[in-house]
Amino acid sequence: MAAEFDLISRYFRPLAGPEGLRLTDDAACVPQKKSVDSIVTKDLLIEGVHFRTQDPVDLIARKALAVNVSDCIAKGATPRLYWLGLALPRGTNDAWLTSFSSGLAAAQQEFGCSLAGGDTTATTGPIVISVTLMGTIPAGQMIPRSGASEGDDIYVSGTLGDSALGLWCLENNELDKFELISAYQRPNPPVLFGQSLKGVASAAADVSDGLIADAGHIAAASSVGMVIWQDKLPISTQATEVLQSSPDLWPRIWAGGDDYQIVFTAPMTARGKITSLAGETGSRISLIGKVSVGQGVQLLDQAGEIVQVASGGYTHF
Amino acid sequence: MAAEFDLISRYFRPLAGPEGLRLTDDAACVPQKKSVDSIVTKDLLIEGVHFRTQDPVDLIARKALAVNVSDCIAKGATPRLYWLGLALPRGTNDAWLTSFSSGLAAAQQEFGCSLAGGDTTATTGPIVISVTLMGTIPAGQMIPRSGASEGDDIYVSGTLGDSALGLWCLENNELDKFELISAYQRPNPPVLFGQSLKGVASAAADVSDGLIADAGHIAAASSVGMVIWQDKLPISTQATEVLQSSPDLWPRIWAGGDDYQIVFTAPMTARGKITSLAGETGSRISLIGKVSVGQGVQLLDQAGEIVQVASGGYTHF
Repeated sequence: MAAEFDLISRYFRPLAGPEGLRLTDDAACVPQKKSVDSIVTKDLLIEGVHFRTQDPVDLIARKALAVNVSDCIAKGATPRLYWLGLALPRGTNDAWLTSFSSGLAAAQQEFGCSLAGGDTTATTGPIVISVTLMGTIPAGQMIPRSGASEGDDIYVSGTLGDSALGLWCLENNELDKFELISAYQRPNPPVLFGQSLKGVASAAADVSDGLIADAGHIAAASSVGMVIWQDKLPISTQATEVLQSSPDLWPRIWAGGDDYQIVFTAPMTARGKITSLAGETGSRISLIGKVSVGQGVQLLDQAGEIVQVASGGYTHF
Repeated sequence: MAAEFDLISRYFRPLAGPEGLRLTDDAACVPQKKSVDSIVTKDLLIEGVHFRTQDPVDLIARKALAVNVSDCIAKGATPRLYWLGLALPRGTNDAWLTSFSSGLAAAQQEFGCSLAGGDTTATTGPIVISVTLMGTIPAGQMIPRSGASEGDDIYVSGTLGDSALGLWCLENNELDKFELISAYQRPNPPVLFGQSLKGVASAAADVSDGLIADAGHIAAASSVGMVIWQDKLPISTQATEVLQSSPDLWPRIWAGGDDYQIVFTAPMTARGKITSLAGETGSRISLIGKVSVGQGVQLLDQAGEIVQVASGGYTHF
């Protein structure tokens, strides 16, 4: 593997925007602007926890950026700059770095942001990828978790559970479920739709821990309860096929996590507007529940019975 | 160990500033200001590489912040906000987290910044601490690496090699060398002095890879050469004692790294100003060399002979 400075100059300098000063200084310099808020997120990805060693390397790089983009656009913000921390086992080869940096190059173009700095180091453990992403939004317009009110509708973008089922397919050698596997390896946060929600959604969060857990974060921050209807949850054709043969996997739909869709609330008066925004941005949107008084999230089946949701979503510890 | 959300709320919420939204949202929201630049740095610390498992846990936390503060103040900026990524082995106990978070609380107070967000996750490998720090500076005033000119003086703050010798003392059971061990475990970047250099220094970098390597970064970015006089290098009393009994450790003075002092250049006309700033901020400053034409850094001994410096400083790979 190349020495540290060669490594930076060969693989990462081409990804740097002007704020990154060609990665030749100790820090990035980002001019601030009046009436703008920076929206900053940070997610760590660990080999063996957040991605599999055998996943395509360019897609590992893309996922590290995508999961941060997901947090950013769920707040209504536009991704701008990111910082990359990379801990690699000694002996990581140039082919790995070539795939990783070219995956990152494609991903930053796709998501409209550029590299502003970072750090590379050796580790004795698994690969660690640490991304800090800065987006921008007009001042005061961040969509918070805390804005949901009783009577608001609850929506989710895209389909749920594909990624968690995709991981199951990979682990169980069901390798023809391309759509599900792709959802796991190549998540697609609804970038344009998320940004269009500012001023429209009352509260939002990205679905990374699982629908019930992330809806629960909104409920807790907003001091409200939520009712979600199981039969309204958006499920893809391939997910439906897998669930038909393995119904025990149903909880992955609402608790599997790694969806990188947006769960959000909005007043009923915004229904027309939300339908338009979904159409304009080519996004699938489902109305899945209502905000209520009280606390916590109840998942109800078609008969109106409470579905037991085992835990609050994926937790690490 | 507490579950992820309990962990955040118990240990890290008390450290969050207003921009961190009590760590109850997916992102931080940082209002931008006219005529201000954000100076952003990111450093990863890996257990067994950047700190020892048996180092005091509160000081591990402090060091993770200090090394980023060092980059920030070497650019003349004022530390403001940081984001913490923490990968912990499953089973990390509450005592560790209590020490870590209280060390961080003390460190952020010492350095004048607050927590704005982050991520915690489990890992199968060593502890990884990823800090992204944002400082601010009046627009256009960042001290770059690239501003050194022929004839400029070269200075360094503090003393050199203490940290690298401190690590040697720890590894060789010379546990009475408190000053050196403290330099390794509890680095003290010259925060006030660094900030006072904006508008005065022509170029600057923090000494993290070793004096010759970091001076070399300035030389390369500025397209100049440098001559540094070995007998002018500032060396502490305890370091002198260790070097007398182990002269083979001399290269740690200029290549050991982990000093977290500032190497900087300034025109000769700034000598009086720099002496004043050092006095006002209680900082030790040494004039150690001159910027020349050409390229690279030459270390000269008292007889004017070139000292062979084995490598360009600490490299990971």
